[in-house]
Amino acid sequence: MIKAGIIGGAGYTAGELTRILVNHPQVALDFIYSTSSAGKPVYAIHQDLVGETEITFSSKVNTNVDVVFLCLGHGNSKKFLEETEFSKSTKIIDLSTDFRKTEPSHSFIYGLPELNRRKIESAEFIANPGCFATAINLALLPLAYAGLLKEDVHVNAVTGATGAGTSFSGFTHFAWRDNNFSSYKAFEHQHLSEIGQSVLQLQENFDHKINFIPNRGNFSRGIHCTTYTSFEGELEDAVGIYKMFYANAAFTHVVEEELHLKQVVNTNKCLVRVQKFDDKILITTVLDNLLKGASGQAVQNMNLMFGLEESTGLKLKANYF
Amino acid sequence: MIKAGIIGGAGYTAGELTRILVNHPQVALDFIYSTSSAGKPVYAIHQDLVGETEITFSSKVNTNVDVVFLCLGHGNSKKFLEETEFSKSTKIIDLSTDFRKTEPSHSFIYGLPELNRRKIESAEFIANPGCFATAINLALLPLAYAGLLKEDVHVNAVTGATGAGTSFSGFTHFAWRDNNFSSYKAFEHQHLSEIGQSVLQLQENFDHKINFIPNRGNFSRGIHCTTYTSFEGELEDAVGIYKMFYANAAFTHVVEEELHLKQVVNTNKCLVRVQKFDDKILITTVLDNLLKGASGQAVQNMNLMFGLEESTGLKLKANYF
Amino acid sequence: MIKAGIIGGAGYTAGELTRILVNHPQVALDFIYSTSSAGKPVYAIHQDLVGETEITFSSKVNTNVDVVFLCLGHGNSKKFLEETEFSKSTKIIDLSTDFRKTEPSHSFIYGLPELNRRKIESAEFIANPGCFATAINLALLPLAYAGLLKEDVHVNAVTGATGAGTSFSGFTHFAWRDNNFSSYKAFEHQHLSEIGQSVLQLQENFDHKINFIPNRGNFSRGIHCTTYTSFEGELEDAVGIYKMFYANAAFTHVVEEELHLKQVVNTNKCLVRVQKFDDKILITTVLDNLLKGASGQAVQNMNLMFGLEESTGLKLKANYF
Amino acid sequence: MIKAGIIGGAGYTAGELTRILVNHPQVALDFIYSTSSAGKPVYAIHQDLVGETEITFSSKVNTNVDVVFLCLGHGNSKKFLEETEFSKSTKIIDLSTDFRKTEPSHSFIYGLPELNRRKIESAEFIANPGCFATAINLALLPLAYAGLLKEDVHVNAVTGATGAGTSFSGFTHFAWRDNNFSSYKAFEHQHLSEIGQSVLQLQENFDHKINFIPNRGNFSRGIHCTTYTSFEGELEDAVGIYKMFYANAAFTHVVEEELHLKQVVNTNKCLVRVQKFDDKILITTVLDNLLKGASGQAVQNMNLMFGLEESTGLKLKANYF
Repeated sequence: MIKAGIIGGAGYTAGELTRILVNHPQVALDFIYSTSSAGKPVYAIHQDLVGETEITFSSKVNTNVDVVFLCLGHGNSKKFLEETEFSKSTKIIDLSTDFRKTEPSHSFIYGLPELNRRKIESAEFIANPGCFATAINLALLPLAYAGLLKEDVHVNAVTGATGAGTSFSGFTHFAWRDNNFSSYKAFEHQHLSEIGQSVLQLQENFDHKINFIPNRGNFSRGIHCTTYTSFEGELEDAVGIYKMFYANAAFTHVVEEELHLKQVVNTNKCLVRVQKFDDKILITTVLDNLLKGASGQAVQNMNLMFGLEESTGLKLKANYF
Repeated sequence: MIKAGIIGGAGYTAGELTRILVNHPQVALDFIYSTSSAGKPVYAIHQDLVGETEITFSSKVNTNVDVVFLCLGHGNSKKFLEETEFSKSTKIIDLSTDFRKTEPSHSFIYGLPELNRRKIESAEFIANPGCFATAINLALLPLAYAGLLKEDVHVNAVTGATGAGTSFSGFTHFAWRDNNFSSYKAFEHQHLSEIGQSVLQLQENFDHKINFIPNRGNFSRGIHCTTYTSFEGELEDAVGIYKMFYANAAFTHVVEEELHLKQVVNTNKCLVRVQKFDDKILITTVLDNLLKGASGQAVQNMNLMFGLEESTGLKLKANYF
Repeated sequence: MIKAGIIGGAGYTAGELTRILVNHPQVALDFIYSTSSAGKPVYAIHQDLVGETEITFSSKVNTNVDVVFLCLGHGNSKKFLEETEFSKSTKIIDLSTDFRKTEPSHSFIYGLPELNRRKIESAEFIANPGCFATAINLALLPLAYAGLLKEDVHVNAVTGATGAGTSFSGFTHFAWRDNNFSSYKAFEHQHLSEIGQSVLQLQENFDHKINFIPNRGNFSRGIHCTTYTSFEGELEDAVGIYKMFYANAAFTHVVEEELHLKQVVNTNKCLVRVQKFDDKILITTVLDNLLKGASGQAVQNMNLMFGLEESTGLKLKANYF
Repeated sequence: MIKAGIIGGAGYTAGELTRILVNHPQVALDFIYSTSSAGKPVYAIHQDLVGETEITFSSKVNTNVDVVFLCLGHGNSKKFLEETEFSKSTKIIDLSTDFRKTEPSHSFIYGLPELNRRKIESAEFIANPGCFATAINLALLPLAYAGLLKEDVHVNAVTGATGAGTSFSGFTHFAWRDNNFSSYKAFEHQHLSEIGQSVLQLQENFDHKINFIPNRGNFSRGIHCTTYTSFEGELEDAVGIYKMFYANAAFTHVVEEELHLKQVVNTNKCLVRVQKFDDKILITTVLDNLLKGASGQAVQNMNLMFGLEESTGLKLKANYF
């Protein structure tokens, strides 16, 4: 059994990780570290876990676990690792933005299995991708791999309220968000840099703009994303490129029918649809921001790092309705 | 024109009052007092008012207006009136609980027009009823008036997220409340005392329990309320009692078809349906908690106090969808 | 009083028209024609109208009214007018697509007041614009007027469930749509032709593409629309162009703060925000698809045609929550 | 491996069964019979199953499977079994109402494990309980077992849109149900007879009324139910009775904190909270109408019938948000 720890246990991603790991057949959840909730049973915060586990939040970190997941606010993972020394053999999976940019100063691998499976399998440190970044990368990487990104890219995506984290703000108040819709950070979302980095990894000569408008939807989970750019070939060519690129992907599937968000909510899947209109290719991607966009992908990375079947513990029943 | 002021302008009830009063043909909105937002345009907080009014929040109270609405937190109206002396001719309509209990220490009239129209017409001070209290009183008062409340009463009602006010709590976070449902304060809701007081006003010998379970629904506006008790007569008798009692009500209507909440959302109406099952009478009432349950009723009271047509400024288009 | 009739009274747009006209101070609602509901009180279908009006659906058309609104399915208005001869003095406002394309074969004026106010004032026949078309036109027309549409335009918009009409489909089932999101008719929406026609009316040399992706949101009312294209000037230039173009608009307002959909739901307003990012201009527009996008705009057109103040009967209280 | 078949594969309960069974480690899904969808892949209807299974709907029934689940409309199971002869060794689990009433004419066992575990373990035919019936029975049975139901019982419960099935009606249209709430079938819901039967099984002398008001909520999945009656003992006595009764229940847990619906959505759990107010006991129960209220409980019954660990294949990750 893999001994696992979670740092920062009270947030959404830690909750999702816990939900997955309590049923993961190869994992023993060793501790969930939370300073704010230490001593409380985990189900006091993640209340659906009543009857599933009696584990309590811990004020201590076991630095000898096999794997540790960092579920800390952006900027805090780096700090935490400077202050805490884990055993040499402890693998680290960080869910924050802190190490997503590949740099000489660290050896974290960007944990998008569809892009970096081999590297992940032998990695010690993983920077788990952002939710929007995953949705957009999975739309663009097959084209980049084929060297076919030749003009500006136009992306519009909508995320649910859990995308904003557990903290309160005007944008997360039910009376505001119910039946509402709004845009934010147009052209300036922080995930653009990790998207650009991934695209360039596959298509070095890409020098066009990725125009991205994120939106706040009135639902709780999920990202729906439409991406288009110019494309000269036929639809079948495009579909062929995508099907080949994702042929071995455990959770990313190319479909030919109309998509909707709830096909993937509460699963680790990303569905991809490719369409052609005149000289344009339109790629629609849907995923669950907390799973394939965060904690599910983190466990997928863990599975790869420990040589397990990639989908172990991740065959999740969709909520669907 | 009636010169009106609002005290405590940033909350939900003040927002609704402002929405109504900017279009009220007999009212000039003199000031909206808010310490937290003084100097800002009202549409900076109540953002739908862009294009409707240029009024700004004021840090000063004009004590010579014709009518002032107190939209303060429960307990704060009393304090505010101790510290602020209005002109003798200023009528006061308080939306808090502070003066709802009729007591020798004050001369506020309980502002439920269906119960106290005459007294309201000549009142100087009005204690505006609570939202649940209005829904339950309008279900029970015709029976009380007929002296027919003879056993325990069973009430179950659900309210929207605006019922909890603008402040943040776990219960108002979208990710929690979306697609959720829960009960709270069963048998102990603070509105029970104003309901009991109103029932006793019409049926002195009532000495049974009103069992009330409030619920939090995953919508923003409205109260749906079912009330039942024993009733020996025929359905037509019951319907007759209700139709007579509400014959002159401007906003409370007895209907014979199935009811649903959105018939009244964004209106000042209360719809009442009466049914009979064996020895029981079931009364369903629906209203908008912010209008007939708060600010709409406050304006209805103002209209009565100033001798206006009761529905002036309150013929509101339902949102319906 | 203007005597008005409605043809096709059971759908959403007829319901909204009725809600507005029963409170319009200058209109007497003469008849609401519905073959499917003839004889029933209007509130049997539009159930929020209980207590507002006792009018019943009629199986007869009065061809001598002052104005008639056609709320028929697309394709049916033309047929209806071939079979029904109205008085010469009857003005006709058609809410379908049948006459939106300006052609020698008919004399309907495209009823977008921000574009055609003068023509509308003297028109006998109005083709009321589509909801998406209104949102997109109001984003583009100031730029077109200034001759500044110089490259392709990128539009992404989301509409509520009422946009799909009252008929049942998989996409309108609550269990499907709740907490869901999806795209449809990408690059091929039927409103593109009326948008193109309006843009060309103001900027004859426009020969670029308008790339439009419509989406289905999990709310009932409203359209949120983001539109961007290249723009060389400064932000102030852009804002100036929009403010000037809408200086006299009764319901379209340029705002400088972040927008959200519920600012306009249940009102006849369109709010417009203009932003600049590098070489791009981003225009966000929000409106209620059933009001400014349909029935509200129809009444606005009627007001103009009869020489009334443009906002008569249209000062609607926003639902907001 | 248990060979399983599903009859009537296009509805909600068949979809949920399929979602569970494709991941059940002891089940091989042999066929899903659907006349309306024969030949189509299952994911053409249950669209979240893309990437999970390639099984297609079948027009043929294999009468030699180990277990068959009947997911037919009420009234149709009986007919189907008259026309179809299964192997002697085929166990049948019927999700309709057809055999829930225990009668000499059939040998179906009422499949509520908390009530009939022993009988289920040796049963050949199971009548799977209704969703409301499960929520109310799990609230009442501990008291009935202790012989403490001494007065009328008052129940109010709300169900989601999936409770109404996949067919279209005014009540399932998104534009109607969104942000809405309504009651129906007050005091007359068809589940009352199975509830009464279960209570009498444990407390023969029960002769009081169960007053039940069902409601339609604006969410998709789940039942929230409050039940109260008189109770003379102390709170600890009550809690003790419930904890003892459910001590061995795999999915029904007594909790002492405030409950909300989403703790159980997309799980097979029922959470039960017991409170005391004066002379009354209040029991709150929450469950997922499609899982513990239908398909999850059906698989739980199957597990018991085949001697498997009761929770096999049913450790489902809650959706929670």
